[in-house]
Amino acid sequence: MPDNVLILAGGQGKRMKVKSPKVLCEVLGIPMLQWVINSCEKSGLSNICVVKGYEAEQIDAFLGDKYVTALQKERLGTGHAVMQAAEFLNSNKDGNTLVLCGDAPFVDTETITSALAFHNGNKNSVTVVTSEISNPTGYGRIIRNNNGISAIVEQKDANSEQLLVNEVNSGCFWFKTQDLIDILFDIKSDNSQGEYYLTDCITLLIEKGKRADAFKSLNPVISLGANDRKGLLHLNDIAREAVIDVHLENGVEFTCLDGVVISPEVSIGVGTKIQQGVTLRGKTVIGENCNIGPNCIIENTKIGNNVVLNNVQSYDAVLENNISIGPFVQLRPNTHILDGVKIGDFVEIKNSTIGKNTAVAHLTYVGDSDVGANVNFGCGAVTANHNGECKFRTEICDNAFIGCNTNLVAPVKIGKSAYTAAGSTITKDVPDGALAIERGTVSIKDGFATNRLAARNEKFSKLK
Amino acid sequence: MPDNVLILAGGQGKRMKVKSPKVLCEVLGIPMLQWVINSCEKSGLSNICVVKGYEAEQIDAFLGDKYVTALQKERLGTGHAVMQAAEFLNSNKDGNTLVLCGDAPFVDTETITSALAFHNGNKNSVTVVTSEISNPTGYGRIIRNNNGISAIVEQKDANSEQLLVNEVNSGCFWFKTQDLIDILFDIKSDNSQGEYYLTDCITLLIEKGKRADAFKSLNPVISLGANDRKGLLHLNDIAREAVIDVHLENGVEFTCLDGVVISPEVSIGVGTKIQQGVTLRGKTVIGENCNIGPNCIIENTKIGNNVVLNNVQSYDAVLENNISIGPFVQLRPNTHILDGVKIGDFVEIKNSTIGKNTAVAHLTYVGDSDVGANVNFGCGAVTANHNGECKFRTEICDNAFIGCNTNLVAPVKIGKSAYTAAGSTITKDVPDGALAIERGTVSIKDGFATNRLAARNEKFSKLK
Amino acid sequence: MPDNVLILAGGQGKRMKVKSPKVLCEVLGIPMLQWVINSCEKSGLSNICVVKGYEAEQIDAFLGDKYVTALQKERLGTGHAVMQAAEFLNSNKDGNTLVLCGDAPFVDTETITSALAFHNGNKNSVTVVTSEISNPTGYGRIIRNNNGISAIVEQKDANSEQLLVNEVNSGCFWFKTQDLIDILFDIKSDNSQGEYYLTDCITLLIEKGKRADAFKSLNPVISLGANDRKGLLHLNDIAREAVIDVHLENGVEFTCLDGVVISPEVSIGVGTKIQQGVTLRGKTVIGENCNIGPNCIIENTKIGNNVVLNNVQSYDAVLENNISIGPFVQLRPNTHILDGVKIGDFVEIKNSTIGKNTAVAHLTYVGDSDVGANVNFGCGAVTANHNGECKFRTEICDNAFIGCNTNLVAPVKIGKSAYTAAGSTITKDVPDGALAIERGTVSIKDGFATNRLAARNEKFSKLK
Repeated sequence: MPDNVLILAGGQGKRMKVKSPKVLCEVLGIPMLQWVINSCEKSGLSNICVVKGYEAEQIDAFLGDKYVTALQKERLGTGHAVMQAAEFLNSNKDGNTLVLCGDAPFVDTETITSALAFHNGNKNSVTVVTSEISNPTGYGRIIRNNNGISAIVEQKDANSEQLLVNEVNSGCFWFKTQDLIDILFDIKSDNSQGEYYLTDCITLLIEKGKRADAFKSLNPVISLGANDRKGLLHLNDIAREAVIDVHLENGVEFTCLDGVVISPEVSIGVGTKIQQGVTLRGKTVIGENCNIGPNCIIENTKIGNNVVLNNVQSYDAVLENNISIGPFVQLRPNTHILDGVKIGDFVEIKNSTIGKNTAVAHLTYVGDSDVGANVNFGCGAVTANHNGECKFRTEICDNAFIGCNTNLVAPVKIGKSAYTAAGSTITKDVPDGALAIERGTVSIKDGFATNRLAARNEKFSKLK
Repeated sequence: MPDNVLILAGGQGKRMKVKSPKVLCEVLGIPMLQWVINSCEKSGLSNICVVKGYEAEQIDAFLGDKYVTALQKERLGTGHAVMQAAEFLNSNKDGNTLVLCGDAPFVDTETITSALAFHNGNKNSVTVVTSEISNPTGYGRIIRNNNGISAIVEQKDANSEQLLVNEVNSGCFWFKTQDLIDILFDIKSDNSQGEYYLTDCITLLIEKGKRADAFKSLNPVISLGANDRKGLLHLNDIAREAVIDVHLENGVEFTCLDGVVISPEVSIGVGTKIQQGVTLRGKTVIGENCNIGPNCIIENTKIGNNVVLNNVQSYDAVLENNISIGPFVQLRPNTHILDGVKIGDFVEIKNSTIGKNTAVAHLTYVGDSDVGANVNFGCGAVTANHNGECKFRTEICDNAFIGCNTNLVAPVKIGKSAYTAAGSTITKDVPDGALAIERGTVSIKDGFATNRLAARNEKFSKLK
Repeated sequence: MPDNVLILAGGQGKRMKVKSPKVLCEVLGIPMLQWVINSCEKSGLSNICVVKGYEAEQIDAFLGDKYVTALQKERLGTGHAVMQAAEFLNSNKDGNTLVLCGDAPFVDTETITSALAFHNGNKNSVTVVTSEISNPTGYGRIIRNNNGISAIVEQKDANSEQLLVNEVNSGCFWFKTQDLIDILFDIKSDNSQGEYYLTDCITLLIEKGKRADAFKSLNPVISLGANDRKGLLHLNDIAREAVIDVHLENGVEFTCLDGVVISPEVSIGVGTKIQQGVTLRGKTVIGENCNIGPNCIIENTKIGNNVVLNNVQSYDAVLENNISIGPFVQLRPNTHILDGVKIGDFVEIKNSTIGKNTAVAHLTYVGDSDVGANVNFGCGAVTANHNGECKFRTEICDNAFIGCNTNLVAPVKIGKSAYTAAGSTITKDVPDGALAIERGTVSIKDGFATNRLAARNEKFSKLK
């Protein structure tokens, strides 16, 4: 059996002033709890139990059935939280257990795995992950001795010498699971707060002749959390900068970072330029030598090479290579755009394939459509895919030319190299190479404006 | 009669390089003079006189007839400015007079009211509001003695000991009005600048046996003004951050502050998320748990709860609850959107009501219209509300379905559950439950493209 | 003959991780090499030779045939680079030669011309341009003596006293051309790197009894370059701030600098306000008292006075005075907009003139058109300028009224004060003052929705 992970996620975060567990507050659009889970899973740890408390149903809804949970009905300290997971610990007590705070999102795999190697290598009963910080005020100080550590001393209990220690408890621990179980319920709440502190385990284990030691992480933000919205914003700023730094290192070009927000799982190719105000979300993948212009929002979209986007919003779409889109375009889910396509302004594409070298220049909606290669959409062309009850597909074959303000009333098929005249509403299939035209009676009423719009004419004549 | 306020607003601000009084330069879109007036009025002081000078007509135009003004034809110092308002002072001389600089926008109500209480409590003739700053160079130093203060010494007149004082004159004073009147015209201009300094009142009053004292404000920016565009930008930055801090404290979520500009009178509910590049102006009110996406501009708009906006511009509109709008949408004045409405991309709504759960998905203009519930607008639908001379209203009843690229030529009424076919121009009322269709003759011309677009076909055949 | 300039542009910039010469990396959208060339040309130096190396063809493609180039096949140091340009030097050896690094973009004309005056005034054989920096680590130190300088000592060769010198080599030199030629090939590569250093010229010239001296530039960023993407971003930040500072000084109003990126050659008039997220590129000229709203992108566009833009993108266009445009508008090349025009949302204009006081309110495309004064475009109006093979022009005369969703199929002319009815497709010229209408048969099918859309009606009835 693999090692256990216990994530403490019971807290409320009152000063956030929302009715949700603090661990669901988001950093770069991802709940803090998910950051912690991701780091565990990337470290190869998948046997995870989440200790929930405040608004526990929200934790359940968020996790689905993917992870074990334990309920901490009252919140009586970190030791108490771990006690609630006793059943989880007992179900797999041969190895080690990693205890983590669900609201310290920046714990990293390097720290997790190195600390475990240190823990096992030194046959520790408990290994505290620590960090060295310039201002340790408020943190639990690590008291080292000749054989590991002797205690974690809280701020209020520390003497003047201990207060000078700047190696502090990160809130992350590796325990030998059986050792933890053995002393877990010996923790007492006879302190000023009336709480059960997990850090008391250190003393209890040492008293039983076990070894406790500390692993100092080089990650400077490992223990960083947030108590209020300002703190949460600070976490976002740190994460934002760290993600961008990785892309800069990889050869991505940024000209101005203002408003650039990139989720941690986004991938960007060498030589691609990301301009100001760009948001990249989810599992977006962008190829090489693209130019992602100001204010694009790209979510879960796969983009090839040499793609130029200008104020485009794209959701769950696929864009191949050598494509130019924008400004002011929305690509909605299940859009697939092939090589060489040009899309202009005020265009929406939804649940459609756009074939090679096709042009959709302006003010057009293409929905539920299969569009071939070299097609030209005139301005204002619309696929009328919805009749009020159902949606139907439109098929437009290679080289077709769709006239301006044409309505293609689905289901309908426009044949190869077929042509629709401007202003036509097409309700029946058009054969290959044919022109389809729907046109009313044209009449010219001479003098109309002179007679009927006298006031208007007068206004203009005065302007001159 | 309430106490008086005298706001000095005569200066030019040459280095701003515009032809307007300096006090009309804006911070967060609000003229500095308005910031000062707002703080006075929130302190319960409404008997206000503004001393105008440079481009006085612009001050008049800005104030309307709401406040008394006095004209300072030549600008000969702060004392001279107050002299111009002698008539105003004489008209209400029983109480106190607050003198303020119109170009120091961050004076606050807490300081104004506490300073007045101190002024009255100590039976002062004059109370100088001061602040303590780390670098006092250039400011008038406050010289305290055993019984209040003895003088305000300007930088150039200060000895080495006085130069070390870092309590400085903020330019804000409470005077006993009668005492001020008594000595005002005794101020002399026999100094290097040939100006009449209001600070000379301190000495004159003390010489008459009156009491002068200083009230130290805790507001660190109380006396901050700007001499040039860079300084004005700095005031904007300070105000921007201060406003956002209040919302963070209130439980509003910000993920990236870049480009976020929020006017001071905007209200935002708990749990609402404000993304990068959002501008909130005027008296905008936003409810709880909304998500205001990147680059929205919201002005004087009332928004309910659970509203999601994505690159929306809204001016003088009302949005109820559970609404989703965007991207790329403009809501113009007198738009009222009811619960559950969904608006997609490239939509403009103007002077219209949109009923519950109605959908306006794309490329649509709804102007001067009364739209019922559950209506569906097809893509490209347009209310033709303007005939070149007049504007008319359109009425669309519950459950109606407006086909794609339909023109509704106002005045016109679409009945309940009525349906208009794609591409129709509707000039007459449509009964409840009916389908209205305007359609021309359809013809298919086989081989058209083959014959007429030979060059086009050839081009594409070469592409392959 | 004028003096020579030799720009060293052979480097790769491996850590940028792109397959292009480092000097083509961009700062504010302009390749670093172009920054250097611009400063030379503004200094009156046009006899320029660029020493190319890595991906030399890209340098050729960038320069066109405007400048002489020399190829450095292997990259063996700065001295070696200059040797490759021996032919260029010999072709004009009477005057001086300025040697510059192509990847230090911030060299300025003031420094170039003052250093030359110093060089000539002191009859120097070589003048090193230097700068004084707080942390000189890594830079070549300038060793001054009683008669100019004695050497430039590299970091690794410097003794403890020399390491304290914080006047450093900027990489920019003025040489007496004949003197440079005389000793150029005496430079040896017998150093640890096996490279030919241009700085060795100093010693060689002094040995021949020539005078070497240093000119200290006051430009603090003269020698700043970038080795990786993070460094390049830093150069962008420096340039961005410097450009904005000049505009602030000129009386331009900025309310929030986030996302504001302005190219160095842009000109902006007094009293114009630039809001957050605005990008101004190329040779854009903006007049006085304009308001350029958030997120505009303006490229090579000439704008008059009192123009209000709101989320507009404009490329190679001309806008006269008193114009209001936006939000969500694109102006494409060869657009010319005359005084008093109002353009609303979702409008594209391309290769067209829009006459005085004309209104294009929403969802309209005007392409290849000549539009008169006082014209009104209804919503959804479209100029159908492209028939699949060719493009044609549309002419719309003064005071015309184009109905909603009208198609104007070019070539076509709409006469003065003519009127087109909503939904019409106009394929023939409309006489002055006439109404043109194309309308199909209208039919009302009672009960359609009741019968055909039963499921829809049922859904809504349940909603209530």
